[in-house]
Amino acid sequence: MKDVVVERKVMARNESVADLNRALFREMGAYTVNLISSPGAGKTSLLEATLRQLQDEEGVRLAVVEGDVQTENDAERLAATGVPVEAIVTGGACHLDAAMVRRATQALCARLSGGIDLLIVENVGNLVCPASYDLGEDEKVSLVSVTEGEDKPLKYPALFHNAATLLVTKTDLLPYLEFDVELLIRNARSVNPRLRIFPVSARTGEGMGAWRDYLLQRARRV
Amino acid sequence: MKDVVVERKVMARNESVADLNRALFREMGAYTVNLISSPGAGKTSLLEATLRQLQDEEGVRLAVVEGDVQTENDAERLAATGVPVEAIVTGGACHLDAAMVRRATQALCARLSGGIDLLIVENVGNLVCPASYDLGEDEKVSLVSVTEGEDKPLKYPALFHNAATLLVTKTDLLPYLEFDVELLIRNARSVNPRLRIFPVSARTGEGMGAWRDYLLQRARRV
Repeated sequence: MKDVVVERKVMARNESVADLNRALFREMGAYTVNLISSPGAGKTSLLEATLRQLQDEEGVRLAVVEGDVQTENDAERLAATGVPVEAIVTGGACHLDAAMVRRATQALCARLSGGIDLLIVENVGNLVCPASYDLGEDEKVSLVSVTEGEDKPLKYPALFHNAATLLVTKTDLLPYLEFDVELLIRNARSVNPRLRIFPVSARTGEGMGAWRDYLLQRARRV
Repeated sequence: MKDVVVERKVMARNESVADLNRALFREMGAYTVNLISSPGAGKTSLLEATLRQLQDEEGVRLAVVEGDVQTENDAERLAATGVPVEAIVTGGACHLDAAMVRRATQALCARLSGGIDLLIVENVGNLVCPASYDLGEDEKVSLVSVTEGEDKPLKYPALFHNAATLLVTKTDLLPYLEFDVELLIRNARSVNPRLRIFPVSARTGEGMGAWRDYLLQRARRV
């Protein structure tokens, strides 16, 4: 019982920092997405490919907040694209919280004079805990790779319920798998009928155009 | 600060139930493994193939405790092998704890007159939180699929540090991927030099013999 009270307090505290983040993102004019998936679903590869597709577009200043339990490997890999990256190493914590993202965003603002139109947050690899933490983002983007099971949205409903978008990743591997994309989509829509869905391959670029165009629209507030 | 105190109390309470579980497993004569991985690393397929390989072996009575956040789909799938399965639906919780496993094990004992030699617990799909929860098991078994990154042991060190065994799963997909198994093994051994490692494919059966033989030895206390 005591644990539940403390958990509620932690969530309430997070929520009030998330509100501050929302105000900050609005003031900055940044559209903010929060990428969430299992470890290994391909968040970093997808993000790398997304940055390369977007970085030459007019009027879309990019920045990344990169969360990991340990190591700054992914942050370094993403920084190689030339896009400003701020790393958060949670040191064991299984999700990002609003305060961590607030500090990272303030650090980015201090580094960047020009501003940010699209801020992409890559969460810790975890399909459970990050789903319930509001970071003040405009939307949560869930990723499921075609090497996972089609029943992921049924087994981990919170994320798919709270996300606005689903990226079905690694579609280049479909010929080698017995994976039913339509079944995944049906399962996802049964949890959240309004889910926007993009099948993509970061490796071949298949489907990446539609995803890039969607982000461009949001970043430009079209 | 208060949160840290509560967390310590939760862990201490879990530890004392884990001690009771250890005593129970010893009394039952059951060797107990706790399978932990990301969602989608293939725990259930691997377990299904493992049960089929072991169920005709003399003197190895099997049972499964199957954990999921939602749905009993996996428990039903495993029960189709004929091996007794007890489902735990955590209803949102991101890991199994010792008390959940205790209740499930007691339910199995009530159903089974013959006893259990090998008890396999499939944890919730999560590479972070289950790593720090002692269930009273003999060993934690970590799984990484070859569709994930080779750096998983560096990015999520707690699990690989606490596990005795690593299963490298879905090796049948290696021809279609740029995955370096040796690099994964080097990374895993840098976190835990004593890690026992089995590359396996549940689909083709490749490597499954060595894994089966290992479990047989443990179950028979050879």
